[in-house]
Amino acid sequence: MSHLIKNGRVITAEHDYIADVFVEKDKIMTIGQNLKVQADTTIDATGKYVIPGGVDVHTHMDMPFGGTVSSDDFETGTRAAAFGGTTCLIDFAIQTKGQKMREALDMWWKKGELATIDYSLHMIVTDLPEAHMEDMNEMVREGLTSFKLFMAYPGVLMVDDATIFRAMKQTGENGALVCMHAENGGVIDLFVQKAIAEGKKAPIYHALTRPTTAESEAVNRAIALAQMAGAPVYIVHLSSADALEKVSEARDKGIPVYAETCPQYLLLSIEDLERPNFEGAKYVFTPPLREKWHQDKLWEGLKKNTLQVVSTDHCPFCFKDQKEASHKFPTAVRVSRIASN
Amino acid sequence: MSHLIKNGRVITAEHDYIADVFVEKDKIMTIGQNLKVQADTTIDATGKYVIPGGVDVHTHMDMPFGGTVSSDDFETGTRAAAFGGTTCLIDFAIQTKGQKMREALDMWWKKGELATIDYSLHMIVTDLPEAHMEDMNEMVREGLTSFKLFMAYPGVLMVDDATIFRAMKQTGENGALVCMHAENGGVIDLFVQKAIAEGKKAPIYHALTRPTTAESEAVNRAIALAQMAGAPVYIVHLSSADALEKVSEARDKGIPVYAETCPQYLLLSIEDLERPNFEGAKYVFTPPLREKWHQDKLWEGLKKNTLQVVSTDHCPFCFKDQKEASHKFPTAVRVSRIASN
Amino acid sequence: MSHLIKNGRVITAEHDYIADVFVEKDKIMTIGQNLKVQADTTIDATGKYVIPGGVDVHTHMDMPFGGTVSSDDFETGTRAAAFGGTTCLIDFAIQTKGQKMREALDMWWKKGELATIDYSLHMIVTDLPEAHMEDMNEMVREGLTSFKLFMAYPGVLMVDDATIFRAMKQTGENGALVCMHAENGGVIDLFVQKAIAEGKKAPIYHALTRPTTAESEAVNRAIALAQMAGAPVYIVHLSSADALEKVSEARDKGIPVYAETCPQYLLLSIEDLERPNFEGAKYVFTPPLREKWHQDKLWEGLKKNTLQVVSTDHCPFCFKDQKEASHKFPTAVRVSRIASN
Amino acid sequence: MSHLIKNGRVITAEHDYIADVFVEKDKIMTIGQNLKVQADTTIDATGKYVIPGGVDVHTHMDMPFGGTVSSDDFETGTRAAAFGGTTCLIDFAIQTKGQKMREALDMWWKKGELATIDYSLHMIVTDLPEAHMEDMNEMVREGLTSFKLFMAYPGVLMVDDATIFRAMKQTGENGALVCMHAENGGVIDLFVQKAIAEGKKAPIYHALTRPTTAESEAVNRAIALAQMAGAPVYIVHLSSADALEKVSEARDKGIPVYAETCPQYLLLSIEDLERPNFEGAKYVFTPPLREKWHQDKLWEGLKKNTLQVVSTDHCPFCFKDQKEASHKFPTAVRVSRIASN
Repeated sequence: MSHLIKNGRVITAEHDYIADVFVEKDKIMTIGQNLKVQADTTIDATGKYVIPGGVDVHTHMDMPFGGTVSSDDFETGTRAAAFGGTTCLIDFAIQTKGQKMREALDMWWKKGELATIDYSLHMIVTDLPEAHMEDMNEMVREGLTSFKLFMAYPGVLMVDDATIFRAMKQTGENGALVCMHAENGGVIDLFVQKAIAEGKKAPIYHALTRPTTAESEAVNRAIALAQMAGAPVYIVHLSSADALEKVSEARDKGIPVYAETCPQYLLLSIEDLERPNFEGAKYVFTPPLREKWHQDKLWEGLKKNTLQVVSTDHCPFCFKDQKEASHKFPTAVRVSRIASN
Repeated sequence: MSHLIKNGRVITAEHDYIADVFVEKDKIMTIGQNLKVQADTTIDATGKYVIPGGVDVHTHMDMPFGGTVSSDDFETGTRAAAFGGTTCLIDFAIQTKGQKMREALDMWWKKGELATIDYSLHMIVTDLPEAHMEDMNEMVREGLTSFKLFMAYPGVLMVDDATIFRAMKQTGENGALVCMHAENGGVIDLFVQKAIAEGKKAPIYHALTRPTTAESEAVNRAIALAQMAGAPVYIVHLSSADALEKVSEARDKGIPVYAETCPQYLLLSIEDLERPNFEGAKYVFTPPLREKWHQDKLWEGLKKNTLQVVSTDHCPFCFKDQKEASHKFPTAVRVSRIASN
Repeated sequence: MSHLIKNGRVITAEHDYIADVFVEKDKIMTIGQNLKVQADTTIDATGKYVIPGGVDVHTHMDMPFGGTVSSDDFETGTRAAAFGGTTCLIDFAIQTKGQKMREALDMWWKKGELATIDYSLHMIVTDLPEAHMEDMNEMVREGLTSFKLFMAYPGVLMVDDATIFRAMKQTGENGALVCMHAENGGVIDLFVQKAIAEGKKAPIYHALTRPTTAESEAVNRAIALAQMAGAPVYIVHLSSADALEKVSEARDKGIPVYAETCPQYLLLSIEDLERPNFEGAKYVFTPPLREKWHQDKLWEGLKKNTLQVVSTDHCPFCFKDQKEASHKFPTAVRVSRIASN
Repeated sequence: MSHLIKNGRVITAEHDYIADVFVEKDKIMTIGQNLKVQADTTIDATGKYVIPGGVDVHTHMDMPFGGTVSSDDFETGTRAAAFGGTTCLIDFAIQTKGQKMREALDMWWKKGELATIDYSLHMIVTDLPEAHMEDMNEMVREGLTSFKLFMAYPGVLMVDDATIFRAMKQTGENGALVCMHAENGGVIDLFVQKAIAEGKKAPIYHALTRPTTAESEAVNRAIALAQMAGAPVYIVHLSSADALEKVSEARDKGIPVYAETCPQYLLLSIEDLERPNFEGAKYVFTPPLREKWHQDKLWEGLKKNTLQVVSTDHCPFCFKDQKEASHKFPTAVRVSRIASN
């Protein structure tokens, strides 16, 4: 089976020009002008862009959280992705405490079977007894090469520095990469408890209880742990200028640190959490939205390659039944936890 | 009772000149040239310095550790201090887990009665249930205004970030100061375990298992916690250029961070740990000695006021019965713990 | 002749306390409480401050400029200073091109005879042929130890980099200090010419034609020249955050750089130049006023000792006959030059 | 006329793979695997690299200097370039003081006719009266879009800051780029004169009389001038870590500064100037070789894109008749000038 896409405006990593693209057995074989080849199908792309499909490296389909589950499964989520030009996504298998990673992984591969585009998985590690270290190596051999750990959500997902260091040491040896949710969960939980105790439950308190210093501290710590372990590290959903500065400093020293940000941090800001009529709840996710001036710094970070990736952290909850429900009795702060990852 | 010290070279914070000093009821009343006053005793200080007595803000007399006890008690230790011109020292009361701070404090005040010079105490906090918060306030009212917490020695002295943050928040309100032993204990313990497992027990491994990155990470974290708590913080026995850089950056931003170093870090270096015939064990303390180039940076820090204090961290253990004993069976690494604080 | 000042609030570099001060033959002999000495006169300072007299290291009395002369001579200027508690000032002898330094100096010492308080002089060097180098050494031996050079005002006061370097090399050897007016005069003159050509003559254009980058560039250059010459350097009337950053960076590297700012830069800002009815002309001096945010940085610079001195750069011109005259025909830009130094 | 290059290892900006390249009328039409096209000639590149030709943006063929002329003309120099895979070079037309730029340019285009590969010219500006500004615009319209100015070689090539600023302002408007030889020539000449007066004429003095601070100062100044002129600037033959730091700082602030280094600064160091038997003279060029540690910083600069270009500054003089001649009577320092640009 072969295809010829003719006269499109072809965008590659180095070029932008009108050309033909010849695809054979799912593989681009030739790009050039006026290709003289036979193809099973020919598509006229005159006046259209011909670009590589997008890869979204951070999504959460069908994710159980706080008694509910994220509202896209792998079928609806990947279909939506395809409509936006995203042809591959990487979701997360989640190990629960006490569970074997393999068991969690099997379950998530199964969930993924509904996918309509390419997909893969990162492995979220919440429990890493010495006995399970070899499981990590095995997964790497199978092609799953990224493991996510949390510095936030004590009692749920958070692991201590020693565990992070051990995971990093292992990836330093087996060639995999640790992805880090970098926020100081211990301190944030105290802020949250205090806010709840004072009846401060509106969406805006989601941001006020998670200061940027809690993020930048954790980013600095993640980098120090990686440096001591002799491994690279990848910071997920970096949201603030303070945190970016830590990544920038480290990269300037030649330490192999990478980071992603998300469209929400590039385009929205803390004011959105104060929208009236509980509309602010639509803007609750973690890390929270920051003051507007952070946006400029993040754009600059992309320009200077301090940030290498834009992912979505797509993890939707319906306003009607999910966000509102959490509103009625517990607290917006709990809403925030439901919406977080 | 009055004294007249005549013709000494008087050194004060602003001057250096030949003058007389008149002391009445333990208080300097007048400094000037050719004082015409009557005194009970007159001392001729011609050709001698007349300087203020030194204050050593970091010592450990009579301190139990690792089954032994530091070899100076308050009597011998303060006598030695006086011979060196130190007329006041501040030691540490140590709360053990589960113990009330008050109880620990009473015991240490009692130990201190042997002192031959002025002395006071900092309070080491290892356990801070909400119910004990008021004890901190009470001590501050009595004049004990500094509380030390540890980021190292998991299972013994180390407390988690949430506890540190809570202590800082309290001092931010009651006007006291948190003193921080800043080293990432979780990671260090893994390095130590690995070294022991590999039979690497010589004194040098005390340094190799406690990298400067473990110190600078902890210093950065301590500062971030203090900043979020709205409180100042004081870093004890800062030993490395990396850690100093974190203090310097914070001070440049106007964050109220203070730090001390010690003569050992200014004058000795990692090579001393490799002296033959177990002599290296004499140079085991925590944080450990660093590469020689760190010394220049520390001196510079003093010159620029990034470091405000030089203390001794005096905490002696005898080579013969204490350091050697630890050598024979357990490990040099345990030596290091005995000698540490 | 002796004086006893009793019960004042004595402020010294290190203390702030109620005490007596005994002065004999113009020299403070004793400071203490309840001094029992005989004095020719006794002054009761109860409820009053007793502080050291101020020293203003940068003034321009009786200075010819742009066809007029600054409106204070050494008599009126020093009398005003005394009323504000300033008991010593350092003015500038100005060498004109072609003149011997000695000749200029003699004239200015003569002018200074009118002074009612202590005073001294810096030497402004505008011409430094090899044959005059020895004159610098002679002055240093006599006690005149600071030489000012200009990087601005081409054709009038500005000297080239080679001349500055030669002066610095000389001071590096004879122990004197080069004081630098640091602004890139070549570029500023082009901005000024353009503004005049476009009829932009209001006071605000004094600021708009002298950007902070022209100051910070010159400060960086002055420091580099000093570093290559092996001599210290002192930046006069530093006015902007950009320039301060260059001083700060150099001092962090241990390069012996010093700088002063003036009250006008700490308290006023560019908006003042836009006051209506030519009132803005009262705020014309050089370097010009900057955007308000620079003030915070300068205050911080004082706090951190990046800036060591506050001087006035006192160089008054009367609004009525001097500033207004310049307004009528030439240009506000010329006004600025009259008021500058 | 068409060519088919088959089975080579094709290296492009984004790919590295075995493929065929089809060229028609001097233009690459198609890159792909197993191309089925007819070509006039077919070349089997199996086991060979197929890479783009190199572009050397900084050379000096047939350049008169110090009474001699560089030993490659456009014929021999471009032939040598082609043998090394360089298929295009950009040389310099040199305006002498008083000469019209057009006249200089015509002469250099004529010299270039000997070239055996593609070539173009930058225009060296040594004299820029207002009347010649329009000549710059005309050249830009014709496609010559880069103008080089010198901050070194007073009396020969050096122009003052005002001239540089004016040139930059013009390029800011006409879209061209100023290339800057950034060294403080005024200070360097004093160092050189002193060395000669002291009989220090060995090759090593070429380095000792041109300190890195003279380069970093000039780089900082060039950037400041460009910033005030609202134009980009390109630093040629950057040789030291100090200078690189200035470029890096500016780029971090988003100022459009670009810089090149050369293989000699990446691979050789100051020791080479001390080779015995006047061999050191082979390593005399400007800026001079630096201490070895600068190499690491320059490599890092390339890695981080602080440096964007590696050029050669190819400007050869024969050891036998040119370097040696200068040795015999004048001074190595004059050698250095001959070999410089």
